[in-house]
Amino acid sequence: MRNFEEKTTNTQVIYNGKVVHLQVDDVLLPDGKTAKREIVNHPGAVAVIPITADNKIIFVEQYRKPLEKSLLEIPAGKLEPGEDPEVTAIRELEEETGYTTNELSFVTSFYTSPGFANEIMYIYISDQLEVVDQPLAGDEDEFIKIHALTLEEAKKYVEAERIHDAKTNYAILYLHALGMK
Amino acid sequence: MRNFEEKTTNTQVIYNGKVVHLQVDDVLLPDGKTAKREIVNHPGAVAVIPITADNKIIFVEQYRKPLEKSLLEIPAGKLEPGEDPEVTAIRELEEETGYTTNELSFVTSFYTSPGFANEIMYIYISDQLEVVDQPLAGDEDEFIKIHALTLEEAKKYVEAERIHDAKTNYAILYLHALGMK
Repeated sequence: MRNFEEKTTNTQVIYNGKVVHLQVDDVLLPDGKTAKREIVNHPGAVAVIPITADNKIIFVEQYRKPLEKSLLEIPAGKLEPGEDPEVTAIRELEEETGYTTNELSFVTSFYTSPGFANEIMYIYISDQLEVVDQPLAGDEDEFIKIHALTLEEAKKYVEAERIHDAKTNYAILYLHALGMK
Repeated sequence: MRNFEEKTTNTQVIYNGKVVHLQVDDVLLPDGKTAKREIVNHPGAVAVIPITADNKIIFVEQYRKPLEKSLLEIPAGKLEPGEDPEVTAIRELEEETGYTTNELSFVTSFYTSPGFANEIMYIYISDQLEVVDQPLAGDEDEFIKIHALTLEEAKKYVEAERIHDAKTNYAILYLHALGMK
């Protein structure tokens, strides 16, 4: 699938940050004209839908500076270079919730915003959670509160837009489609 | 909901582009420490799930430079400042597919990547499409191919990762959950 391909004629690196790496490419369009493409390079991310033995979903609440408010989200974190997404999934689950698992099932993956970013999101689910006695410490600058909610409760949080991001809205719809009670 | 709030002590504007506006904020954390937050400011976007009279879903295929490949996606576009999302929805539907509608239903909205971007995505659905005789011209630098697929065909595109972005994967799951055949 190389039709519509846009060939890069120049790349200008704008910023190399902790999360965001921004570049602007000059491209040659299929009709021979040129355009600029702003591209956020991102290492990718992994999320887990954690289901407890009493059939609740674990969410983490954290402040999201770009939105200037906190959201409840399924636990997630960035991929380290070359890391297997399942390894990321288990690390982030432990750091953010204090649970671990050795049974993960793949749900889906998707690009979050393909118009300007190459971030891919992998989503897993586990209903085989174990409490970790001394869980891994999370990132120093992350402040997190845990919520365990039934699917019905979670749907109310979606309506109230306290759950309001792509991976978590997808997860709720996925559990609904599975027939979870 | 102002707990965990991160107060901005300084904002540095890195880049103001056509799509991406990048800033880096210095913030004061709840424990009194400081951190940097990289924030992509985005005007928000609107997508439509277009269903034809013969029960097919209309997708647009376009090259996504950040991924260096083309994807099939539901039609979508950026909000203009102050614009009602339904107006954006109808304009983008017409520009990208040549259909219009005066019956849109709201499906959901979500932030695509709340860790580093404030982009919100609004999703609508319409099964009342009308062909436009002389549709609005799309953006000069957009090259688009239209695909009309049944839900079963679309699910195969998801498996093959030719459909592979948040709004479109959500749309497929939504139609599946609705019981569309």
